[in-house]
Amino acid sequence: MPELVRDLSEEQLLARIFPLLPSGSSTLVGPGDDAAVVAAPDGRFVVSTDVLVEDRHFVRSWSSGEDVGWRAAMQNLADVAAMGARPTSLVVSLVVPGDVEVDWVTGFARGLALACAEVGAAVVGGDLSGGDAVVAAVTVHGDLEGRAPVLRSGARPGDVVAHAGVLGRSAAGLELLREGRPDVGEALVTAFLRPDPPLEAGLEAARAGATSMMDVSDGLVRDAGRIARASGVVLDLDAPGTALAEDLAAVRVAADALGRDATTWVLTGGEDHGMLATFPDGDLPAGFRRVGRVVATAPGSSGPVTVEGAPAAVGGGWDHFSG
Amino acid sequence: MPELVRDLSEEQLLARIFPLLPSGSSTLVGPGDDAAVVAAPDGRFVVSTDVLVEDRHFVRSWSSGEDVGWRAAMQNLADVAAMGARPTSLVVSLVVPGDVEVDWVTGFARGLALACAEVGAAVVGGDLSGGDAVVAAVTVHGDLEGRAPVLRSGARPGDVVAHAGVLGRSAAGLELLREGRPDVGEALVTAFLRPDPPLEAGLEAARAGATSMMDVSDGLVRDAGRIARASGVVLDLDAPGTALAEDLAAVRVAADALGRDATTWVLTGGEDHGMLATFPDGDLPAGFRRVGRVVATAPGSSGPVTVEGAPAAVGGGWDHFSG
Repeated sequence: MPELVRDLSEEQLLARIFPLLPSGSSTLVGPGDDAAVVAAPDGRFVVSTDVLVEDRHFVRSWSSGEDVGWRAAMQNLADVAAMGARPTSLVVSLVVPGDVEVDWVTGFARGLALACAEVGAAVVGGDLSGGDAVVAAVTVHGDLEGRAPVLRSGARPGDVVAHAGVLGRSAAGLELLREGRPDVGEALVTAFLRPDPPLEAGLEAARAGATSMMDVSDGLVRDAGRIARASGVVLDLDAPGTALAEDLAAVRVAADALGRDATTWVLTGGEDHGMLATFPDGDLPAGFRRVGRVVATAPGSSGPVTVEGAPAAVGGGWDHFSG
Repeated sequence: MPELVRDLSEEQLLARIFPLLPSGSSTLVGPGDDAAVVAAPDGRFVVSTDVLVEDRHFVRSWSSGEDVGWRAAMQNLADVAAMGARPTSLVVSLVVPGDVEVDWVTGFARGLALACAEVGAAVVGGDLSGGDAVVAAVTVHGDLEGRAPVLRSGARPGDVVAHAGVLGRSAAGLELLREGRPDVGEALVTAFLRPDPPLEAGLEAARAGATSMMDVSDGLVRDAGRIARASGVVLDLDAPGTALAEDLAAVRVAADALGRDATTWVLTGGEDHGMLATFPDGDLPAGFRRVGRVVATAPGSSGPVTVEGAPAAVGGGWDHFSG
């Protein structure tokens, strides 16, 4: 019989989790007191929070505890990197039903640790509660290392639009799972279960003078629209067949197997968490490829995002709130 | 027909919430980008997180949205104050079922704002998701203003044990609600629904040289035991009839009405979030009253907490994980 969460007290479960949590050089006081203390050497810190809800953002039959821990950490780490900040520390609230296996929870902690290891971030605190479904709320902090934060509002006409990471693969992997065809593209399924955004590219972009940046969580077109609106400009994307050829090729086999459109996945699929940024000239930092250019809003303009000058369809995008 | 959460998109619901969120002087970049930026003038920040789960920590038939927002903020603010830090900023993840009224959610935001107003803290970010039950995960940050954090581990034999705030009232209020007798003690019910810990007393304690401190969330005896174990000492509490006379008087009517023991509520009732601290001499800062003294651990000692030298019963305490 596997050991279940309800078989342990909160203190016993915490005793299993604590040794698995990653530590980091920014931690001045770690878990165990009323609060942790974290270094903020430049006198500021960056903070973001995201929540994953069972049967909304993941299902336990597809995702192991380690998968969910990884994803909960990584989508938050991407938010900090997209500000041009180095992630330093996380706090985690985990709601878990009593009938979940203890191994799932320790796997969750290992997944957090694996994701944090990519950038040396620590888990400095948390809270644990019972509940009817797993909920993981992660808050992440980062250090700007003396730089200005890279906001969504700084894109200027003439800038190059560039992206680091992958597009559409998480959406394709999710569809393969939904259709019961994970065998068609194991790498795509992994891209959904364990997105692996290029966190260092976010810092490189900030150092290289990116004028705006965000991580792509809701799809390229929808998130490009957010930069466009925040900056008061239009983002005109290059022809996907050329600019995004590699992403199209990666999802092609899944698109063919399921009868879907590869271009739609690449332009509107969310949750890959790559870095979308604008740069004042064509000299892009490592990891970035050009995907478009910034143009001024014209009178009677056809929306904040165009593809080769034509209006771009947002697609369904992601609204975790409905459904 | 009241407007329900499912009638709005996530963006529409956020548009209702945003104007209600409190701002503060530490906010350098507020909500709306990938992450917020908060000032940390002394090069460190304090961080803590707590989660409230519907039907575990509150029920919607007893608690309004404003009550839950207040409580979610206040229990976190107390954690930061108990480190001797000034709360500066919160981020909030809210999971909310589609059949909840929009007014409940805007009430939640108003409750957050009311609690934050006590110390000038801001809500700088958040996340919103659907789910089958309300879950509110709050992360709070604070500024140590150049002081050392006040940990649980600094109590020394000879120190005075002192407390600021109230004890037992939240537990009494919860029992009145459970027994359907809220009319017996409305102030006690309010103490449960909207705990009002003395946040400024935490800062005063730090300035006055408190050797250890924590907020009492799991009951005086249980939490005194945490300071005792972390510090390697024994906390010997004074006779409750004298030291805690005011708290005993406040819960007496409820104890009599329900046939409960007032002393048990005051010694073991949780969730009042008062400040429990130790001081090297008897000159206590404003708001604190002496409740005991710190003694050395003796060979064959009878546990980390005693009452006038006799072993103290922890009582049921609070374990949100079981049940």
